[in-house]
Amino acid sequence: VTQDKIRGLVVQSGGPTAVINQSLVGILTSAQKHNAHLETVYGARFGLHGVLHENLIDLSHRETQDQWPTLAQTPGAALGSARIKPKAQDTKRLFQVMEAHKIQYLFYIGGNDSAEAALLIGAEATANCYPLRILHIPKTIDNDLMMTHHCPGYGSAANVVAHFALADDLDNQSFQHSIKINVCMGRHAGWLAAASAWAGPHIPQLIYMPEIPFQLSKFVQDVQWSYETYGRATVVVAEGIADHLINGTGLGDQDMDEFGNPSRLSGTGKLGDYLVCAVEKHFHQTLNIRKLRIRSDTWGYIQRTLPNMVSTIDANEAFRLGEAAVTHAVSGISHKMLTLQSQGADVPCDVGLCPLEDVAQKTRLMPRDFINALGNGVTPAFLDYLKPLMDPITPVQMLKEPRLIQKKLPPYQR
Amino acid sequence: VTQDKIRGLVVQSGGPTAVINQSLVGILTSAQKHNAHLETVYGARFGLHGVLHENLIDLSHRETQDQWPTLAQTPGAALGSARIKPKAQDTKRLFQVMEAHKIQYLFYIGGNDSAEAALLIGAEATANCYPLRILHIPKTIDNDLMMTHHCPGYGSAANVVAHFALADDLDNQSFQHSIKINVCMGRHAGWLAAASAWAGPHIPQLIYMPEIPFQLSKFVQDVQWSYETYGRATVVVAEGIADHLINGTGLGDQDMDEFGNPSRLSGTGKLGDYLVCAVEKHFHQTLNIRKLRIRSDTWGYIQRTLPNMVSTIDANEAFRLGEAAVTHAVSGISHKMLTLQSQGADVPCDVGLCPLEDVAQKTRLMPRDFINALGNGVTPAFLDYLKPLMDPITPVQMLKEPRLIQKKLPPYQR
Repeated sequence: VTQDKIRGLVVQSGGPTAVINQSLVGILTSAQKHNAHLETVYGARFGLHGVLHENLIDLSHRETQDQWPTLAQTPGAALGSARIKPKAQDTKRLFQVMEAHKIQYLFYIGGNDSAEAALLIGAEATANCYPLRILHIPKTIDNDLMMTHHCPGYGSAANVVAHFALADDLDNQSFQHSIKINVCMGRHAGWLAAASAWAGPHIPQLIYMPEIPFQLSKFVQDVQWSYETYGRATVVVAEGIADHLINGTGLGDQDMDEFGNPSRLSGTGKLGDYLVCAVEKHFHQTLNIRKLRIRSDTWGYIQRTLPNMVSTIDANEAFRLGEAAVTHAVSGISHKMLTLQSQGADVPCDVGLCPLEDVAQKTRLMPRDFINALGNGVTPAFLDYLKPLMDPITPVQMLKEPRLIQKKLPPYQR
Repeated sequence: VTQDKIRGLVVQSGGPTAVINQSLVGILTSAQKHNAHLETVYGARFGLHGVLHENLIDLSHRETQDQWPTLAQTPGAALGSARIKPKAQDTKRLFQVMEAHKIQYLFYIGGNDSAEAALLIGAEATANCYPLRILHIPKTIDNDLMMTHHCPGYGSAANVVAHFALADDLDNQSFQHSIKINVCMGRHAGWLAAASAWAGPHIPQLIYMPEIPFQLSKFVQDVQWSYETYGRATVVVAEGIADHLINGTGLGDQDMDEFGNPSRLSGTGKLGDYLVCAVEKHFHQTLNIRKLRIRSDTWGYIQRTLPNMVSTIDANEAFRLGEAAVTHAVSGISHKMLTLQSQGADVPCDVGLCPLEDVAQKTRLMPRDFINALGNGVTPAFLDYLKPLMDPITPVQMLKEPRLIQKKLPPYQR
């Protein structure tokens, strides 16, 4: 491959986020500034599939440029995404396609699975002396990548979850005796469920994260405690706690079917229904309390792509990482993931770099000191961590400590 | 009951909305202006329960006044709500409580069930010559009350649903072969599901409203058509279509259990799971198409109380109806519901009045000409109806008609 100008290719991978297109437009904006060196940037339709099947589009095209500002603020993967791991023959094909189209810069926007794919592709390039510069731009609402202070996509999803938690508690407060259980995304890590605590300290929330082994009996006791203390319980569980229910000792094989295909936890209400049944049984049968409302919601896929709820700093950082990927590629850097490095609570993060090996297939769980001692909520340290990523929530407040006026009649039995 | 100054009482009833507290603060603000005549306004904790058990709070109290501005913009029923129909002994008790506390104005904020309660209470007052002025302020996200152009609460919930539909289609577009089914609130009427069309004409949505008998076989055909035409299907069904599945001819008794307790449709994923199974069976077995993603979400209770998504006009109108209720009561009007009367598309609605009999227990369904001929979407007439209630959505747009660059290699078989 010899040529005067370089061509780049962008691949979006894994689940979409609200700011994944900020990174894309960041790449395109930076590439335009380097157009003396960089001829054009292609995009692969639907992730690696697009590369393998040569379904490529020219993103530097003038018609496409007009769309950049709107595109950047559009949640969802504009190029289309996929979840595939390149097999040996796929990797071979990938290099054929890149060679045929004279592509020498590969920008991979994704999570820990795509860091693995980027690692494999990078190793193959090195082994075959293909002049590839490959850079991975982190993206995940799960916030579970190593080596970066936080992940683009997380702040916006956290903002959505905080608003959902707030909405749900306002709804819950509207009823006299009410228990509400919400199932939040997060299979392995509890970062997103934890963000529901941003809804405010006046919400007596119970939050369950997969980092802490989930015990149904303790859960039910916690709900009872909240109900007795506050007259209600507003609960957020990360969907990943289902794994503890399936694999744990508390439930036999018979109970497994309750959860269907685990890969679909966000698209089904089964976990919520299961927890409602458990709480109902406890209140009805053990406590003999029947006059209460017990409901569940599963917040589903809208957590990751809700327009109008995008965190300003998240959008900004996603864009900056896209820009930086191009600058680094042009300056000769390859085989790295871009990272966000905290410089203190009130200062924007610096952009850093780390080896792909340190990220690929690894999962960063919440540190124990971000989770409270009881394993059913977060600590102030977590809220300090979260603060720089979040926009403030418009203040809402039900009546504070409404005092009843003096009664004048004997009690009423209905 | 004789006294110089009048006392009022506010009752919030039924499911909460994002603007029900606007009506409450509208009442309080107007009552303050009439304080030469109106001594104070009480609020009943948790609807009629609060009246029956004398759980009343003084809302004109200075400490409470400081909270009004924040309270008005807070979704959820700040006084607490309930769903009970007064029995004969309840009505008797109600008048004892009102007499004991010298209450002569009763403001009932609610839907068609509470209009019925207000009607019963009003009739009892007339029969017993109790000097009561009772006014009903409409409130429902379902938008299903007769005699009013639309209902406070609907515009904000419609805004949420439109954003959810948009988010969901952006997520859905991120995948190559994807079918997504969303279950929206709306038991008897499809107004809220229909509002998902506000997300934009570029979304190839299928919308199913309870006004049209739901046929599973036609539904599955529609999904297939959307999939073949657009490469995806983004579907919104009103939860109420479950009744057609239970009662219709298409499904036997055996299928009833799929839906659990119908009063809990919003708090379970069963309808969505059921529809996913039906679509999956059709694609896998009938069409022999297996490589596609089929998921469902149930949008749940956050549809009615999400902060940050409140429609400006909705908030405004809810406040105005609260204000008007006091003005009318002071001027001697009683036994009426406040209504919104359209004066044309670009002019604010006038506040009107109607007899409680015309609203109580009645349901306003969507007119046939708001639903398309195929029964799977809305008409421009519906969008014209909806337009004055909605804020514009921040423009978002995926890549428009991305054109693939020329391929250079033979096709690839993975």
